[in-house]
Amino acid sequence: MARAINFSAGPATLPLPVLEYAQNEFLDHEGTGISLVEHSHRGAAYAKVHEETKTLFRELLDIPDTHEVLFMQGGASAQFAFVPMNLRGAGQSADYINTGAWSDKAFAEAKVTGEAREAGTGKVDGKYTRVPKQDELDLDRNAAYVHFTTNNTIMGTQFHEYPRSGDAPLVADMSSDILWRPIDVSKFGLIYAGAQKNLGPSGITIVILRKDLAERSPSTLPKIFRYKTILDGDSLQNTIPTFPVYMVRNVLRWVRDQGGAAGMEKRNREKAGYIYSMVDDNPDFFRCPVEVQSRSMMNPVFRLPTEDLEKKFIADAAEAGMVGIKGHRSVGGIRTSIYNAMEPENVQTFVDFAKTFATNNA
Amino acid sequence: MARAINFSAGPATLPLPVLEYAQNEFLDHEGTGISLVEHSHRGAAYAKVHEETKTLFRELLDIPDTHEVLFMQGGASAQFAFVPMNLRGAGQSADYINTGAWSDKAFAEAKVTGEAREAGTGKVDGKYTRVPKQDELDLDRNAAYVHFTTNNTIMGTQFHEYPRSGDAPLVADMSSDILWRPIDVSKFGLIYAGAQKNLGPSGITIVILRKDLAERSPSTLPKIFRYKTILDGDSLQNTIPTFPVYMVRNVLRWVRDQGGAAGMEKRNREKAGYIYSMVDDNPDFFRCPVEVQSRSMMNPVFRLPTEDLEKKFIADAAEAGMVGIKGHRSVGGIRTSIYNAMEPENVQTFVDFAKTFATNNA
Repeated sequence: MARAINFSAGPATLPLPVLEYAQNEFLDHEGTGISLVEHSHRGAAYAKVHEETKTLFRELLDIPDTHEVLFMQGGASAQFAFVPMNLRGAGQSADYINTGAWSDKAFAEAKVTGEAREAGTGKVDGKYTRVPKQDELDLDRNAAYVHFTTNNTIMGTQFHEYPRSGDAPLVADMSSDILWRPIDVSKFGLIYAGAQKNLGPSGITIVILRKDLAERSPSTLPKIFRYKTILDGDSLQNTIPTFPVYMVRNVLRWVRDQGGAAGMEKRNREKAGYIYSMVDDNPDFFRCPVEVQSRSMMNPVFRLPTEDLEKKFIADAAEAGMVGIKGHRSVGGIRTSIYNAMEPENVQTFVDFAKTFATNNA
Repeated sequence: MARAINFSAGPATLPLPVLEYAQNEFLDHEGTGISLVEHSHRGAAYAKVHEETKTLFRELLDIPDTHEVLFMQGGASAQFAFVPMNLRGAGQSADYINTGAWSDKAFAEAKVTGEAREAGTGKVDGKYTRVPKQDELDLDRNAAYVHFTTNNTIMGTQFHEYPRSGDAPLVADMSSDILWRPIDVSKFGLIYAGAQKNLGPSGITIVILRKDLAERSPSTLPKIFRYKTILDGDSLQNTIPTFPVYMVRNVLRWVRDQGGAAGMEKRNREKAGYIYSMVDDNPDFFRCPVEVQSRSMMNPVFRLPTEDLEKKFIADAAEAGMVGIKGHRSVGGIRTSIYNAMEPENVQTFVDFAKTFATNNA
């Protein structure tokens, strides 16, 4: 079949050249006569992939020497547990900024093993339609850390200015917008991101850790759950998911060739601009529930006049080869996930379809 | 390059038809116009893969209704922590049978979070050259469970009769020999296995859990670490590593087509027979340090007369297209990992090479 335009929220579309590259050498990795998936994680072939992936991250995100790139398993959901277990000392509390489903899950998991408090919310009239501003936060000066979610896939909101957390390390779940633009990594104590939205397939989690924080890992925590173990072991303390890392490397090479993080920002703002312009230019038909300053550049969400029209919109789009646009079941509506890999021309195709749909169904 | 004969201990060689199948549909999964790695873990395409993988496991291992197949992340090393945290109650102790590096790591991790005791050892004169028999075990009648490692990749030992653990659930790390032959799953409380030896690429861990044991998961444990969460969520409580599961499915289809677990046992005994016969038939040149009844059918290990000859043997083998035979650095010597996917004719080729080497270097 012709390639579908895939707006899935994650796992998500990947650059076609990246897929083709992986397919081409799948049986014989770099002339070794062995597939990458069959190579030992301790052998020279994988070691090269491992090092290049870390180096590309360092270059693309301009990561300072104070921080290290770790590869872990379990996705953001495991980090919801690892972060408090590693960074929150006995008797300490941690601050959580709550902007919807994922940050709420992180908050709930932190409360299982100790103290955590809500230091801000994006809730307005019962719905998470914005992210809070700095002066709306209620930060605990003694917090072990301050946790927030940079982009909220379900709600379609995103932090465009990051919270300032004072002396407490800032911890960010960037699963759905890592590398969408340049950032100042030095401002963060810890960044984590599941790969399956902006970086590659599912199965690997990238953690960028300020190295001194590894010393917080308590000896009562199983060794394999300590950031210190992963840091000291160069993420190879046990068998790493080699293929997901390899695919992330291929995606990072593609990002580099597209102009790096700055190139991604230009591309992403262009794509999101297409969709938000379409919505704003047709206020009688489309409506974005999100506050303008909090709109996500990764997951624009919008509504149509009725749920029946939304159903028809989704069905007609699928017929035209565009899939994955149904909003999350908890909020409904339309969601267009347009991560780094989504081609601008595909978003144009979608916008053209949506405008025609609006004209025909107004 | 021509396909190498890959004796790597894991990640390890996979069946060539399985690799070719995955390569062929890598850009377009079952005519959807989307790669498997781009499909949502909640969509119909992946759901089909998920269900088929579970069903194949159930059929191939004849898993009773009392047990469920779970997919988890973190490898066996994470299970070293999950098992005691889930199955050992407050104040309880767990029994560990220690047969070398991996069971020792499991034992050490269990001691981080509570009580654990050694209930048996495979150590003879400071070396793990055998596995203990039932009457050598010293089991605690009140143990939360009894843990053992069915096959020891580094030592080249394997349990051919499994321990009987009385009322305590029997917990087995089968990472390196799951599905090497038929087993009676009803005898086990929990079986876990990283995929990267007998089942597929790295990045997914298979857990076969007696369902009633999920009730032991304590509420003080982060939700994402509870077997109950994984069981209730059908392993889809968060984003699953889709590609590793997909590859495992493809391997399981291949196992089924080769005669299932019984077919694997015949094939594996044949392959191991080639190597052990070669060793036993040339006692002046080759020597297996492992007790005969404890010999592994997955990782036969042997020594040559000198370490210099071993180095030459490894180099000459590589020149002949056979790689990954260097013994683990902690024990030295030669290790031939001949998991399910290793073709008998490739083992024959190796044995022919080894015999010639022995003749030329005696």
